[in-house]
Amino acid sequence: MTASTDRVTAAVLIIGDEILSGRTQDVNLSAIARYLATYGVDLAEARVVPDIEQEIVDAVNALRARYDYVITTGGIGPTHDDITADSVAKAFGVTAPEHPEIMALLRERWGEPNAARRRMAHVPEGGVLVKNPVQGPPGFQIENVFVLAGVPAIMRGMLGDVGPRLRTGAVVISRTVRVTGSGEGLIAAPLEAVAKAHPDMSLGSYPFFSPPDIYGANLVVRGRDPAEVDAAVEELVVALTEAGAAQIERIAPEA
Amino acid sequence: MTASTDRVTAAVLIIGDEILSGRTQDVNLSAIARYLATYGVDLAEARVVPDIEQEIVDAVNALRARYDYVITTGGIGPTHDDITADSVAKAFGVTAPEHPEIMALLRERWGEPNAARRRMAHVPEGGVLVKNPVQGPPGFQIENVFVLAGVPAIMRGMLGDVGPRLRTGAVVISRTVRVTGSGEGLIAAPLEAVAKAHPDMSLGSYPFFSPPDIYGANLVVRGRDPAEVDAAVEELVVALTEAGAAQIERIAPEA
Repeated sequence: MTASTDRVTAAVLIIGDEILSGRTQDVNLSAIARYLATYGVDLAEARVVPDIEQEIVDAVNALRARYDYVITTGGIGPTHDDITADSVAKAFGVTAPEHPEIMALLRERWGEPNAARRRMAHVPEGGVLVKNPVQGPPGFQIENVFVLAGVPAIMRGMLGDVGPRLRTGAVVISRTVRVTGSGEGLIAAPLEAVAKAHPDMSLGSYPFFSPPDIYGANLVVRGRDPAEVDAAVEELVVALTEAGAAQIERIAPEA
Repeated sequence: MTASTDRVTAAVLIIGDEILSGRTQDVNLSAIARYLATYGVDLAEARVVPDIEQEIVDAVNALRARYDYVITTGGIGPTHDDITADSVAKAFGVTAPEHPEIMALLRERWGEPNAARRRMAHVPEGGVLVKNPVQGPPGFQIENVFVLAGVPAIMRGMLGDVGPRLRTGAVVISRTVRVTGSGEGLIAAPLEAVAKAHPDMSLGSYPFFSPPDIYGANLVVRGRDPAEVDAAVEELVVALTEAGAAQIERIAPEA
């Protein structure tokens, strides 16, 4: 695990009809994004696809060609709609036989596992297991693709075995300046001026609005050089003050 | 607005670095999915892309070619990273001049708007406004693409002007059977048997796990024929009981 100066990128592929039907609120995307950030890996894209083999195959192949890593969530259980392992195998043009370590785990837990549970042992040829410290069978990694569970508590547990395998990038530091009571129309010019003065950094504005009358924006300053991030935050506070922003707060970085 | 028997599909395109950084938890996807479902429109795919013009252009063009509708969220404010309108215009090969109705709204609110606020008036040629009953300027529709705000309260308000413009499909009815204390390994066989008996319906299993020991799965039966959905639910309850599932509940449909 060596830190590099170039950008390391990842994509998340969320697999599951339940996310697309609106039945389940996804929370894995933001958890993965924050986890990857601690390794200096930028989440560059995310997709949500249904439990349809060709959709999964196409998305895996598009994303693994384009980004350093792909993390999938969902579809690795024992039911007929759990087709992720077989679909990922198809994307790589390999089969997905029963993995002996998973079969041993299943036998330990269930005796001779039934046909449904045996599905959970499918791992594409060449795949390496990803530990599941929470409940149930492991995930797996094949080349630059990590296949994790969809249940959030289990997915987060599996992530712990992903990070140490990643090529890491320079960690992005993020600081937030919160403006309340002034809209983005007033904020835009000072924000853009500071952004132009720091072309290597990312300055974003994320408006908030709570009816009837609480509004403003969180201005997020992101960069890889801590001193430059601090300097940009101070320049932004000065520029916002001069522009007449109502209430300006520097939000403490999250622990 | 005529109901049709064929499937009507949509994709959601979430635009914003803040979702990919994990800073903001997206809640728009599930809100849009549930809204579309009331019009019989299936959300078939979702993507999250950063505030980068070419990424937005490529995603809009891929999705609008493939699905009946595309709904985008985010990036329509006045700051330098709000590039959705200009990017969507580029995807359609048109310019995005200042829309006279939006300019009139801005003048009413601010007097002569500054350069930043004028960005909010950019609408691709041929675009039709989407009402914003909450706060700020409207969204717009160009052909089969609807461009909405990212702030959830505003996005939800705008949705009200989207539904009446959609070609509607047959509404999918969804019912849930909740099994607690039995895992998917036991559930899989009865679930698959019922799924095979109803090839036109979708039966999914969504496991849950709350450490240390609450586990089970929600089995979701979805179809367009209410009588068949009810019949499948009853068949599933019988099959689960015969398989020895611990606790089986029919969950009342949501209002």
